[in-house]
Amino acid sequence: MADLYCVGVDLGGTNIKAGLLDEGAKVVGNISVPTEVDRGTQAVVDNITEAAERVMREAGVDRGKVVGIGIGSPGPMSHRRGLVINPGNLPCMKNVPLRDIVAERTGIPTTLENDANAAAWGEFWAGAGRDVSDFVMFTLGTGVGGGVVVNGRLLRGHFENGAELGHMIVQPGGRRCSCAQHGCVEAYSSAYNLARRAEEMVAEGRPSSLKKRVDAGELLMAEHIVEAAQAGDALAEQVWDEACYYLGVAMVTMQHMSNPQRVVLAGGLIAAGDFLLSRVRSHASKLTWNLLNDLPEIQFATLGNDAGFIGAAGCAWEARRTGEW
Amino acid sequence: MADLYCVGVDLGGTNIKAGLLDEGAKVVGNISVPTEVDRGTQAVVDNITEAAERVMREAGVDRGKVVGIGIGSPGPMSHRRGLVINPGNLPCMKNVPLRDIVAERTGIPTTLENDANAAAWGEFWAGAGRDVSDFVMFTLGTGVGGGVVVNGRLLRGHFENGAELGHMIVQPGGRRCSCAQHGCVEAYSSAYNLARRAEEMVAEGRPSSLKKRVDAGELLMAEHIVEAAQAGDALAEQVWDEACYYLGVAMVTMQHMSNPQRVVLAGGLIAAGDFLLSRVRSHASKLTWNLLNDLPEIQFATLGNDAGFIGAAGCAWEARRTGEW
Repeated sequence: MADLYCVGVDLGGTNIKAGLLDEGAKVVGNISVPTEVDRGTQAVVDNITEAAERVMREAGVDRGKVVGIGIGSPGPMSHRRGLVINPGNLPCMKNVPLRDIVAERTGIPTTLENDANAAAWGEFWAGAGRDVSDFVMFTLGTGVGGGVVVNGRLLRGHFENGAELGHMIVQPGGRRCSCAQHGCVEAYSSAYNLARRAEEMVAEGRPSSLKKRVDAGELLMAEHIVEAAQAGDALAEQVWDEACYYLGVAMVTMQHMSNPQRVVLAGGLIAAGDFLLSRVRSHASKLTWNLLNDLPEIQFATLGNDAGFIGAAGCAWEARRTGEW
Repeated sequence: MADLYCVGVDLGGTNIKAGLLDEGAKVVGNISVPTEVDRGTQAVVDNITEAAERVMREAGVDRGKVVGIGIGSPGPMSHRRGLVINPGNLPCMKNVPLRDIVAERTGIPTTLENDANAAAWGEFWAGAGRDVSDFVMFTLGTGVGGGVVVNGRLLRGHFENGAELGHMIVQPGGRRCSCAQHGCVEAYSSAYNLARRAEEMVAEGRPSSLKKRVDAGELLMAEHIVEAAQAGDALAEQVWDEACYYLGVAMVTMQHMSNPQRVVLAGGLIAAGDFLLSRVRSHASKLTWNLLNDLPEIQFATLGNDAGFIGAAGCAWEARRTGEW
């Protein structure tokens, strides 16, 4: 077992990150290269393969010691078929059998995983979930992504769209989500949507210190809402508190669903620190039942932007362990 | 493998049901005996053991061919520790290590499972979920129970309270549930609660054909609501439609969570037939996203009250298969 490695590749709309990790999740090398989406399918596939090759080369590791490649891809995609289906931010990657292409070019067994699942697996394997077996991650960015580990295994689901936690309905008939549902947690609690909600309320004529920015033609950002809420702005406080409240609702529903030991928050929004964490914890505590004492621990993720490639490598290790190859 | 059997025991507050099943889920014998809760712990434990012994004896099966016993117990309980902890309807069964007691008395390996999980496993193994690998069951009775199968394995969770689907929050700040949360699906969609909601609305002075029954001191039943809604009573129609609507919300959240191929409805309320099923399907279809076509099939369970002992026997077969013993 000693001295073997897996490559993890995090395929993003802007950059491809690749890392080389041993079975203990030690990162022995990592790089980032542009995805070059505008150059089309072949170029992107070349960049992915080259990133994997380069991280092996630069780490000075004999390729005979690299036993697997894991790739985290934006969805929709199919782990089972190794297929990138139709990712919104990678329009040139429609129906690309990326797993088999990379395996063939490199001669190394390859596995493909949903990027949100891969990041959650990264935190589970090497980060904030390292010591538990039932684990949930919410990633709070432009959207709200999710990943669920049940009894040490990634939950994928029949249609391979499991753990789309941003689209749990937390307020039926509520705010319209980009997915066309109403009242998704994403519609209230993503960095993007909480800024949009504040803009909408300013446009309705509600007084707020944020009006100056809106009037100046500035696009509101989540950090503006946090800043204004912390300074006592009532509108910003309402938007922020509701974002945290609906995350609390989602926590309690996850508590009763997969009953995890720990739920981890990740993504850009966690820059808000304790202003986010203690608020979500407080709402979840108030919302949960008193029948049993099984509210999960709520914590922050610890791997930051590296969770993607670390988790992708972890998925390769897991594929090897479970005999996927 | 041929000619081997497992016993399944469904421990209820009133009756103990036991069955003897082969590995293909064929029921070769089954009985029902009173639980006799009021006679205390020893009597109940004796009745459980005797039910298992009797079903083997009466089927004329050599006990050397019985390779396992599965017991479905009301929660809270621990599968891992084989412990009945504190079931509301079995007050004498506090902290009883039932698994080990039964295993010792019978000399047959025994497993203990949550009764809602066992019933869901029954439908998954031998009923409406027989041909799928990702499966969810909602049991609509006095409460709303649940069971979730992920990739062919029962979801239990870290605290062993997974799949408590009745307590998913579908209306934050909504109707108070017996668990002290607000807006649980159980608070709207259980047989018990939809009758209570109708009574509350009658008490508020809302006109309804149900008022006659309430005034006569009758306790409203779910079937009264169904009957009145079908006859065009507006109050009953509202209560019924909301019960179905919140089940639809729960379906969509489960779609995004465990992403099952099929969700099955079970319990007394399914006597309402298509008046329930088509209404729930219709709400779920309207509530779901249009990003991906992954709404699960929604169907009725097929095993009725036998799901409990069938599933308990199935849990024993599964314990054997997975090397629990």
